[in-house]
Amino acid sequence: MAERDPAKTRRTVLDAAARVVAERGAGVSIDAIAREAGVSKGGLLHHFRSRDELIRALADDMLEAFFVAVQAAADPADRAEGRLMRGYIKASFDVLLQESSPAEHVALVSAVFKAPGVADLMRKDKVRWEAYFADDGLDPQRLLVILRAADGAAIAGLYEGGHSHEDLEHIREILMNLTRSPGPLS
Amino acid sequence: MAERDPAKTRRTVLDAAARVVAERGAGVSIDAIAREAGVSKGGLLHHFRSRDELIRALADDMLEAFFVAVQAAADPADRAEGRLMRGYIKASFDVLLQESSPAEHVALVSAVFKAPGVADLMRKDKVRWEAYFADDGLDPQRLLVILRAADGAAIAGLYEGGHSHEDLEHIREILMNLTRSPGPLS
Repeated sequence: MAERDPAKTRRTVLDAAARVVAERGAGVSIDAIAREAGVSKGGLLHHFRSRDELIRALADDMLEAFFVAVQAAADPADRAEGRLMRGYIKASFDVLLQESSPAEHVALVSAVFKAPGVADLMRKDKVRWEAYFADDGLDPQRLLVILRAADGAAIAGLYEGGHSHEDLEHIREILMNLTRSPGPLS
Repeated sequence: MAERDPAKTRRTVLDAAARVVAERGAGVSIDAIAREAGVSKGGLLHHFRSRDELIRALADDMLEAFFVAVQAAADPADRAEGRLMRGYIKASFDVLLQESSPAEHVALVSAVFKAPGVADLMRKDKVRWEAYFADDGLDPQRLLVILRAADGAAIAGLYEGGHSHEDLEHIREILMNLTRSPGPLS
């Protein structure tokens, strides 16, 4: 692939890396990723100097994409407490409802997030989420339970042999309703 | 290893398979598992006729071990509604608090649970859990949110660069408190 559009090549490599790592784990070779992306190994190494650097870039890309998706999903016309959390729930479940295989998604996340240097990215991301939710007006106890339950819905499909759309829509509606009062859950 | 104690050999192989699959994914060879277990390939194949059969046995073993751990954690002197859920929370968080690497646990679960034939085991397991919780006296909405939040706590460590014991104990206490009223959460 000629280097006419470096941003596009970078995007192609990151997408290919996500597919290959989801299928085969973080131990996958640079060659396999380059092959999947349809670029030469030299071309890939021009964008990412090592496999570790590529995996870190993939982690950063996944964290960033989810943060952007949540912001985009929060309704600007909604002025009530819990608005940001409703965006989070909407974005999370949109991903789950589109996903064909919860196991591959979780395999990707677990492979990428144990790679060297990624823990620092995740700690920074956690701080960003705390700042994001600080102004949402929900009691911290309610906030935490809803967040954890939304995360749990993502992994439940894994334990239960695949996501059922009906089950996902059911828990999504329950969580959406729980965002509509600000105080602690009781 | 001489076949003096077939149950012990079987246990050794399952434990070795769990370690190797956690590190290297479900694509790992029978030879690698046999090596880790310290048994010959022939010895391993005497207990499990194929890699798929071994992975299914591992999934079954993990599901069974967790079910037994939850039953053991439910306090027989506790007679109040939510008793079984308190056992579930206790057993789940005991696992998380002992775990060194959430990424390896999740890698193991995702590798094992996408293997051929495992979805059927999981669907049966789901039915067993529904029957287990049916007599616990909690409203289904409260039950589902607590369950999903407990599952979510397991994956949160993955997204946040490792489990913090303080965070785990905090969400565990919140969830325990939520088991003490039977009606829907509001």
